[in-house]
Amino acid sequence: MDFTVRATVMQTPTRGTFTTLEDARIRVVDGTIVAISNTGEADVTLPPDHVLVPGFIDLHIHAPQWPQLGTGYDLPLSEWLFEHTFPLEARFDDLPFAQQTWEDMVPALLAHGTTTAVYYGSIHTPATTALAEACIHHGQRAWVGRAAMDHPEGTPEWYRDDDADTALAATRESIAQIGALDDPHNLVHPIITPRFIPACTDELLTGLGALAAETGIIVQTHCSEDDWEHHHVIERTGQRDTDALDSFGLLRPSTVLGHGVHLNAEDFATIRDRGAGVAHCPLSNVYFGNAVFPAAQALDAGVHVGLGTDVAGGPSASVLANAARAVDSSRMLEDGVDASASPAERGVQGSRIDAFTAFWLATMGGGSVLDEPLGLIEEGRRFDAVAVSLAELAPSTAGYTPERRFEQLVRLAGRREITDVWVDGRQVIGDL
Amino acid sequence: MDFTVRATVMQTPTRGTFTTLEDARIRVVDGTIVAISNTGEADVTLPPDHVLVPGFIDLHIHAPQWPQLGTGYDLPLSEWLFEHTFPLEARFDDLPFAQQTWEDMVPALLAHGTTTAVYYGSIHTPATTALAEACIHHGQRAWVGRAAMDHPEGTPEWYRDDDADTALAATRESIAQIGALDDPHNLVHPIITPRFIPACTDELLTGLGALAAETGIIVQTHCSEDDWEHHHVIERTGQRDTDALDSFGLLRPSTVLGHGVHLNAEDFATIRDRGAGVAHCPLSNVYFGNAVFPAAQALDAGVHVGLGTDVAGGPSASVLANAARAVDSSRMLEDGVDASASPAERGVQGSRIDAFTAFWLATMGGGSVLDEPLGLIEEGRRFDAVAVSLAELAPSTAGYTPERRFEQLVRLAGRREITDVWVDGRQVIGDL
Repeated sequence: MDFTVRATVMQTPTRGTFTTLEDARIRVVDGTIVAISNTGEADVTLPPDHVLVPGFIDLHIHAPQWPQLGTGYDLPLSEWLFEHTFPLEARFDDLPFAQQTWEDMVPALLAHGTTTAVYYGSIHTPATTALAEACIHHGQRAWVGRAAMDHPEGTPEWYRDDDADTALAATRESIAQIGALDDPHNLVHPIITPRFIPACTDELLTGLGALAAETGIIVQTHCSEDDWEHHHVIERTGQRDTDALDSFGLLRPSTVLGHGVHLNAEDFATIRDRGAGVAHCPLSNVYFGNAVFPAAQALDAGVHVGLGTDVAGGPSASVLANAARAVDSSRMLEDGVDASASPAERGVQGSRIDAFTAFWLATMGGGSVLDEPLGLIEEGRRFDAVAVSLAELAPSTAGYTPERRFEQLVRLAGRREITDVWVDGRQVIGDL
Repeated sequence: MDFTVRATVMQTPTRGTFTTLEDARIRVVDGTIVAISNTGEADVTLPPDHVLVPGFIDLHIHAPQWPQLGTGYDLPLSEWLFEHTFPLEARFDDLPFAQQTWEDMVPALLAHGTTTAVYYGSIHTPATTALAEACIHHGQRAWVGRAAMDHPEGTPEWYRDDDADTALAATRESIAQIGALDDPHNLVHPIITPRFIPACTDELLTGLGALAAETGIIVQTHCSEDDWEHHHVIERTGQRDTDALDSFGLLRPSTVLGHGVHLNAEDFATIRDRGAGVAHCPLSNVYFGNAVFPAAQALDAGVHVGLGTDVAGGPSASVLANAARAVDSSRMLEDGVDASASPAERGVQGSRIDAFTAFWLATMGGGSVLDEPLGLIEEGRRFDAVAVSLAELAPSTAGYTPERRFEQLVRLAGRREITDVWVDGRQVIGDL
């Protein structure tokens, strides 16, 4: 389908920069942006006080945790995981329950402007394939991974793969089923998903690394998320998490490392050299990270970084809310939190990122991790876009510059302000 | 006007507790709740999937900063204040500009569920009186204070009171004008508002303290907000901010102290002994506080604490967003932010508050600071209430307990979910 959208575009082409295209005409052919100009007719025109921004990329979201969204953050991690999260994930053995959840979740995420999601599924192949089907049906770009987890100590007996061979066979089966789906727009892709080192045996990790090398399919896992996991890996393997994943063959181009809160400069160099990236999940890290991911330092080190909601470790399904929070957390890392310490001892200088950089993480940053032509409204990229109403955000007496209107969008816009969403040139929310 | 509302009520009667009244009938006579029962007819019934909660109390909001809501947080404080904020406030010399701003702001705050607001105005008496008129017109409960600021070093020449006498006379005039307004529901009250010690001469501070003693009118000011202000007061007065305010006669029952990030245990004891309280502004503190207000420690010390948005030092006008953030900030204070420090050195144990406590701060906590019968839907209190739709918050497969639904409300509800608002028994948002 070919069409032309007329809109004022706001976006962040590079880290920390902002551009606006006033009253642009964006020509889309077969889902690709083929031309942008200042004149000519349009098939679709955004209403007044609306702007068009690139679609948001959620690099880290646990689909089977959707039914506990926004709840349980007063619990200790072990109780949250073993008494709530794993029992919930285990229910996705029930395919109708899974399908009903996906029917609720995928449209809700699109309504939040999430045009691309990188999903962890449960250990259940049918539920995971059904998730990919729901993404195709509702028109969301997605990487969908069946979670592999076989370690008898890091997982409960009632929710794990029987052994490494079983997990590897199920992963291959999940990849085959997703690959066999009728997906004319090529929206959905498999992703190899060792949950994290504590949940996987060495045999499984080695096998999944080999599978990635064999198939070229990208990998996602958690890395140095919190104190416990970070130190557990060091004790078990004698290596830091990053190096252990590298040894297992899992640190590859576009490997998506969830969290990375406890990564250091050497880890960043290794991740950069392998072409992997980090899914920064600032809201989740408040509860389960024990510290703030040093986003500015990672970017300075040349690491690809995007954003993840980490639903339901993160309470919000909104990538934009996580962008605003990424700014906030970076400022809290820079200034520190404990007023009884001296200012010099309290924080970490050079940690702040601004709202433009946070939006860049939510769009271009995610695209850079995945190495896909997403995250910017420009010729040659896919038309994944979100229309946002600024009408009720800016006070009538404000008179903001475009930069300030955009900053306000990053800080305050949510599902209420998102009126229309397109993925790969197809309108999936709204009816312009 | 007398009426009965039928609704399921969710609220937090004491710190950290939660109660729900299923399908209650709330009888309201002349703005006061006179009875709550489980049977009987109702004049108004909340739609399915809605719950009724107490109205939110914003203890700290700068009305004339409304036109820069959500913008400018990448600026250093001095530039934010002297190049943006003070010039903006100075524009409220223009009464039509002020009136247009209030016509935009007051309904927006009511739509966020702010049934009570404690406002800083500008130095302009007419604009401040117009703010009180707008609150009466739109039906918002409010304390409205003309900002007093006369210090030649702490304020710009083009935006200050000429001297202490001028500021005191203008404060008296503002109090008289607000007192003379036609306010049949007694919604609006004056509040004595020395901006903060750096902006006021000793003569002005002493005079305003005497005025408070003379009139019994409550006081608001900033206290130990950030490193700069906290240390500036110590250098100028030889006392900590709390003690200096006390010496000026400003630390009185229901004095609202904005921020208090750098208060210590001795300060808390003094504040408690005077019956004053703190407006905790967690979002603003990210940018301008240099640390996290230790809310749990303040509550443990017996200090009254409520929440403030600190618009526009805080980017969000939502008290509920600040409640969610109060939880988050408390967890970041407890865990710390710098992963390169050891876990034991990183954070401050005992700092966390939960979502129930945060909601209590937003309602009962604010009422406790003001010493007003607000913050709870129970017999004898004013009917200030907010209807929240939970329909799209909870995934269809969730099956939450009431506690979990309420936690989700605190974490995720916003203006989009708020459908109806009542103040003093009068519906001000929605049309049930």
